[in-house]
Amino acid sequence: MIKVRTPTLLVNLKTYSEGTGKRALDLARAAEKVGSETGVYIGLAPQFADIAMIAQSVSIPVFAQHVDAINPGAFTGYILPESIKEAGAVGALINHSEKRLVLADIDATLNRIRELDLASVVCGNNPEVSAAAAVLNPDVIAMEPPELIGTRIACSKARPEVVTGTVKLVRRVNPKIVILCGAGITTGDDVAAALELGTDGVLVASGVVKAKSPYKTLLDFASSMTRR
Amino acid sequence: MIKVRTPTLLVNLKTYSEGTGKRALDLARAAEKVGSETGVYIGLAPQFADIAMIAQSVSIPVFAQHVDAINPGAFTGYILPESIKEAGAVGALINHSEKRLVLADIDATLNRIRELDLASVVCGNNPEVSAAAAVLNPDVIAMEPPELIGTRIACSKARPEVVTGTVKLVRRVNPKIVILCGAGITTGDDVAAALELGTDGVLVASGVVKAKSPYKTLLDFASSMTRR
Amino acid sequence: MIKVRTPTLLVNLKTYSEGTGKRALDLARAAEKVGSETGVYIGLAPQFADIAMIAQSVSIPVFAQHVDAINPGAFTGYILPESIKEAGAVGALINHSEKRLVLADIDATLNRIRELDLASVVCGNNPEVSAAAAVLNPDVIAMEPPELIGTRIACSKARPEVVTGTVKLVRRVNPKIVILCGAGITTGDDVAAALELGTDGVLVASGVVKAKSPYKTLLDFASSMTRR
Amino acid sequence: MIKVRTPTLLVNLKTYSEGTGKRALDLARAAEKVGSETGVYIGLAPQFADIAMIAQSVSIPVFAQHVDAINPGAFTGYILPESIKEAGAVGALINHSEKRLVLADIDATLNRIRELDLASVVCGNNPEVSAAAAVLNPDVIAMEPPELIGTRIACSKARPEVVTGTVKLVRRVNPKIVILCGAGITTGDDVAAALELGTDGVLVASGVVKAKSPYKTLLDFASSMTRR
Repeated sequence: MIKVRTPTLLVNLKTYSEGTGKRALDLARAAEKVGSETGVYIGLAPQFADIAMIAQSVSIPVFAQHVDAINPGAFTGYILPESIKEAGAVGALINHSEKRLVLADIDATLNRIRELDLASVVCGNNPEVSAAAAVLNPDVIAMEPPELIGTRIACSKARPEVVTGTVKLVRRVNPKIVILCGAGITTGDDVAAALELGTDGVLVASGVVKAKSPYKTLLDFASSMTRR
Repeated sequence: MIKVRTPTLLVNLKTYSEGTGKRALDLARAAEKVGSETGVYIGLAPQFADIAMIAQSVSIPVFAQHVDAINPGAFTGYILPESIKEAGAVGALINHSEKRLVLADIDATLNRIRELDLASVVCGNNPEVSAAAAVLNPDVIAMEPPELIGTRIACSKARPEVVTGTVKLVRRVNPKIVILCGAGITTGDDVAAALELGTDGVLVASGVVKAKSPYKTLLDFASSMTRR
Repeated sequence: MIKVRTPTLLVNLKTYSEGTGKRALDLARAAEKVGSETGVYIGLAPQFADIAMIAQSVSIPVFAQHVDAINPGAFTGYILPESIKEAGAVGALINHSEKRLVLADIDATLNRIRELDLASVVCGNNPEVSAAAAVLNPDVIAMEPPELIGTRIACSKARPEVVTGTVKLVRRVNPKIVILCGAGITTGDDVAAALELGTDGVLVASGVVKAKSPYKTLLDFASSMTRR
Repeated sequence: MIKVRTPTLLVNLKTYSEGTGKRALDLARAAEKVGSETGVYIGLAPQFADIAMIAQSVSIPVFAQHVDAINPGAFTGYILPESIKEAGAVGALINHSEKRLVLADIDATLNRIRELDLASVVCGNNPEVSAAAAVLNPDVIAMEPPELIGTRIACSKARPEVVTGTVKLVRRVNPKIVILCGAGITTGDDVAAALELGTDGVLVASGVVKAKSPYKTLLDFASSMTRR
C-alpha cells in the first residue's frame, strides 16, 4: 500500500508562533487549498496539541512531529503512537535533527508505526545516516543538512552532491523508498532543483511557515512540482 | 493569585489505553461530575493530543503531562508552553519520575510557565529532591516514591515518614507551596492518610485510570477529602 | 589495514566491581596469558580511568567502552577520542545497549575514530539495527539481544536465528565487516556455537568478569575458537 | 571533616587539547608548584583517562569532571564512583553546564559520593539553581553563567549581582557550603573580585588551560587570593 503519494510536499510547523494553534489552522487551510488546486500531496506536521483540531478541519494528511517507541502504559509526557493516530494523524516524523533518536529506538518506533498502519518519515542529516535509516524500511527518508536548516540557502542548490549522494546510497539499500530533501528551501526553484536531483519531494518549515503569504509560497512550491 | 485550589486531586492519565482519546474524555466527564458533586478541585493531565478536546468538553482544569523550557522557534517534536495553553491547559506537570528534567531546565520551564500565567506541578522522588525543587518556587510540589508508582501500595500508608519528611523539608524552604503526594494511592483511606500527614492532596494515576469504575473511585477519593 | 584480528574474543568489564582498578588489571593479565597460550585475539574494554594502567601493563589490545563524537574543546565530562588513544586504547565500543547513541552520533563518532586510526566496534540489539549500523562502515559489528545480556542463556544457543539473521543482513550491506555476537555467553560451547552460526567471535562480559576463574573461563572460550 | 580547603582554585581541563594526556600532566605540575609556593588549595579536574597518571604524579587534589549515580554493575560506558576513587580522585564535579544531570540524579550522585567519602562540587547556572542544588548538601557549589563560559568576560566583573545573589540564596538554605563562581575568569583581578563578592574561590578552565603560561596565570590567580 502506498502511504505517501509523490511528488510530496511536507510542511513541518515546528514550534513556531506562526504554526501554533489558530495560526496552524490557517496554514492548514492554505495548504488544503493549494493541494486541491494543484493535485500535489501536501502533508502538515503541527504540534501534538494541534493535531486533532487540524485533522478535523481539513482533508490533507496530518503528521506528528515525533512519536515514542512505546506501547500503552506508564510513560508520562511521552507520545504514544495510538494517541496521535486517534487524534487523526496518518503518520509521523521520526529522528528529526531537532529530536534525534537512538538507533534502536528508530527501529522500535518504526515497528510500532507499522503495527498501527501509520506512515513513517525518518530524517537523516547526511547520505550515510539516511542510508543507514533506510535499512530499517521507513516509508519516507528526508535528508536535511543541519547547517542549512532555518537558513534561506537551499540544500538543493548549495549542496547538490549531498542530495544526489543520498538518493544513490538510499536507493542502493532500499530502492522503493520515497526520498525527500529539506533545509533552506525557500522558492519554487529550490523545489524544482530538489526534484531534478532525483528526490520525490521536499520537507519544508520556516520557508513556508514564516512566509509573508504561506498560501502563495505553497502554491509556488507545488506548481514547480507539477510543471515538470 | 491562587492557581491550584486545595484539597487537590490531580489525575495523571499517562499513556494508558484507558486514558487515551475517547476514553480520556469519558474519564474527564466522570471527574467533572465528581468535582461538581463534592466541590473538590479535580485536575486532569491527559496526553498532549487530547488536551484540546478535553478542555473544550469539560469545565475541570486540564494539565499537560510535561512542557519544554523553550520559546517559540525551531524545536520539532518539543512541547511549547504557548501551544498547550492555547489548547486549553491551565498548567503542567514538570519533572515527573517518568520524564525527568535536568535541574536547569526545571528552573527555565518554571520561568516560562510563570510568564504565561500557567500553574506548575513539579514532581520529586523523595523529600530532599522535593525541597530542592521547592526552592525554585513552583505552585505545587508532588512527591512520589518511584518504587511505589503503579503499585497498589500507598505511599501514605507504606512510607508515612517520607511524606511527613517532604512536608517538613519543603515547608522549611517554601512555606506557601501546595504539597501533594502520590504513588500507590488506590482507596479513599489512602487519600485520607495523605491529608492526615500534612499534604494538601494527591497525585494519582493507575488507581483511577485503571479502576473498574473511575467515577466511583474518584467519588471515594474526593469524599474522603471533604469528610475531614 | 586489519584492525581487529579474527577469531575475536572481546571482554567488556562494564562497571563491575570485579572489573574495576586493581581487579581489572588481574583480569587483563589473565587475558594476556590466554592470548599468548592460544593465539586468539583477546581485547579488553575496561573503564576509562583504568585504560592507561592496563595498556601500560599488558600487551593485549585495550578498548574504551564508549567515546563521544566530539573534537577537542569545551566538553566537560565527555570522552574525547584523542584522550583514550593517548591513554593507550586501540579502539572503542560504540552504541552498547547500556550506552546507546543517536544515529547521527554513531556516524560522527565513526568519523572521529577513523580520523585517529582507532578500531570501532558498533553494537546492535537485533539484525536490522546491526545492518543499519553496518552501512556506516565500522570495523566490527557486535549484536547482542538485550534481554539475554547478563543472563547465562547464550544468544548462540537460545536465539540462533537472530545470530544468523544478523550475519545475513550485515553481510548484504557490508561483506567485509567483522561480526561478533554476545549476551549470555558462559561456556566454550556457547562460543563454538557462535562461530558455527557464521560469526567471527564473541563479545562477553559477566560470563568472564564474574567467573570464579576468569583465566580458566577465557582459556575455555579461546580454546573452543582454535579447535575448529 | 573539611573536604575542600578555602580559598579554592579549581581548574577544569575539559576536553581541551592543552589539557589532554601529557599536556594535562604538565599543567598538573605547574599547579602543584603554584600550590606549594602560595599555599592556595588548587584542585585539578582532568579527563577520566588521565586521572590515575596525574594522581600518581602530583600531590594536589584531583577531581573527576563527572560521575554517574550508579553502583557497581552492568553500566557500560558509565563513570563508576569507585573507579575514579581507586584511580586517585578525591572528588568530582557534578552537573557542569556541559554535562547537566536530572535533579534526582544529582541527589543520587551526592549519596554515592558521600558513601565513598569523596568531595562534591555541584555546578549551577544561576543563583536559584545553585540554591536548589545547595539543599542537597554538596561540599561545594560552583555557579557559572553559561553565556560567559569560555569567554574572557569575567562573571565577577560583568555580573556581580549574579554572584552576590548566589552567595545570598545559597547561604540562606545552607550556611556552611563552600561557594565558588566561574566563567570568564582570566586575570588575578577577576579572581580578587570573586572573593570580594563573598565567594570562597573560583572554578576556572580556558583562562588557565589555554593561557600562554599556565604557571604564570595560576600564580597570578593564587597570589590574588592570598593577598587579601
